[in-house]
Amino acid sequence: MKFGRAFERSSTSDKGEFNTAMKAILGFKPKNISWYQRAFTHRSMNQKDEKGNPLNYERLEFLGDAMLGVIISKHLFKEVPNGNEGYLTKMRSKIVSRQHLNELGKELQLNTYLESKIGPEQFGDNIYGNLFEALIGAIYLDRGHDYCERFIRMRVIDPHVDIERLEGKVMSYKSLMIEWCQKQKKDFHFEIAEDQGVDDRPHFSVKFTIDQRVVSRARETSKKRAEEKAAQRAYYAMQDHINASKNG
Amino acid sequence: MKFGRAFERSSTSDKGEFNTAMKAILGFKPKNISWYQRAFTHRSMNQKDEKGNPLNYERLEFLGDAMLGVIISKHLFKEVPNGNEGYLTKMRSKIVSRQHLNELGKELQLNTYLESKIGPEQFGDNIYGNLFEALIGAIYLDRGHDYCERFIRMRVIDPHVDIERLEGKVMSYKSLMIEWCQKQKKDFHFEIAEDQGVDDRPHFSVKFTIDQRVVSRARETSKKRAEEKAAQRAYYAMQDHINASKNG
Repeated sequence: MKFGRAFERSSTSDKGEFNTAMKAILGFKPKNISWYQRAFTHRSMNQKDEKGNPLNYERLEFLGDAMLGVIISKHLFKEVPNGNEGYLTKMRSKIVSRQHLNELGKELQLNTYLESKIGPEQFGDNIYGNLFEALIGAIYLDRGHDYCERFIRMRVIDPHVDIERLEGKVMSYKSLMIEWCQKQKKDFHFEIAEDQGVDDRPHFSVKFTIDQRVVSRARETSKKRAEEKAAQRAYYAMQDHINASKNG
Repeated sequence: MKFGRAFERSSTSDKGEFNTAMKAILGFKPKNISWYQRAFTHRSMNQKDEKGNPLNYERLEFLGDAMLGVIISKHLFKEVPNGNEGYLTKMRSKIVSRQHLNELGKELQLNTYLESKIGPEQFGDNIYGNLFEALIGAIYLDRGHDYCERFIRMRVIDPHVDIERLEGKVMSYKSLMIEWCQKQKKDFHFEIAEDQGVDDRPHFSVKFTIDQRVVSRARETSKKRAEEKAAQRAYYAMQDHINASKNG
């Protein structure tokens, strides 16, 4: 988090650095960089245009939120042809949940580019989601609908929107992981050990390895539960990778 | 309201009629008419695609609602550069209110094109707003974002979105109308008559004429209130015309 103008965009070299960073995040070259600068300007900077109107990310957030809603709606409309309005609305709100948007913003480390006069300790986690929405608003004004769709597809839909998982239809993470390993021709192994530990009841520890690498561990009161938990943890840790291989 | 397949789109002449009607409403020629047919198909028709997925306007409504939100958000973002997120959100919900959407759908007589097996007496007023949203969803899928923007501009923003009025800043419709008449060099006259009628208290009737044509009437217990009411009625009746002359 750059604050107190540590990230001074008025110098030519830092401007170049910001442009380069945006290009990497967006997957295309911005036309009018000032929209993106605004998307990373906190209100504490007190920036205004020549007419005294505030220049910070808050209004862009309003716009980006609406645009994100449209693109996700269109995706769901096409992907789930038998889902009714209520279902589509529920799925959309799961995808654009505050928590999910915060994760997306964190993943892209959007805080790195924020100009602010207040310190990082004063921001909650919502700063990530807010910046993510503002960035979409900036794309919309800079390049229009189709570039927003492209960006949201690349950063949200392709890596994260797994309709079956959102529906809670994944019944067994163990079979999901086994199926994936087999398809990918990877060795996998659930190594189980009885482990009383400090508890009264017997416990089972599981180490889940893929290609001889430990990807997750779990400890439960039954072998079955321990394996399922380890598989679920592995799935969550590897889901980008798993989805990428599904789509590719 | 056509129901019981009174509006039979399977015959060639009625298909042509539907296409012509759509073109008039949309202001452009549809590419894939089937989206618009779906936008005017009620669930009672029980239409399905080859995979058994329902074909009616409800899912398009979900999409159109989101798209309408984006276009109105963009308009407000640009038109009100000093409005904060809360203000923009409030204004947007005024514009896309259920009541307003119903009025828009009624104005375009969208019910005329609806295929339904249940009778008009079973629909509430919301059918108009629902069809209006579904129509926007159909435009989005048929022609994309820019055509939606064009349509929403033509049918919603230009004729109906008066930010000052939405803000409740119009304090007096009488002065608004007088100002407009003076600018347009039109004769105007408030003709007042005391009119006891069947009431105990004295009432005042007002006839508001512009260029010798009666544009509205009102009846109230004070002269001032009667004039204001007549002016407001004139404003609502003539707002397309008034806004067009403001913009032109």
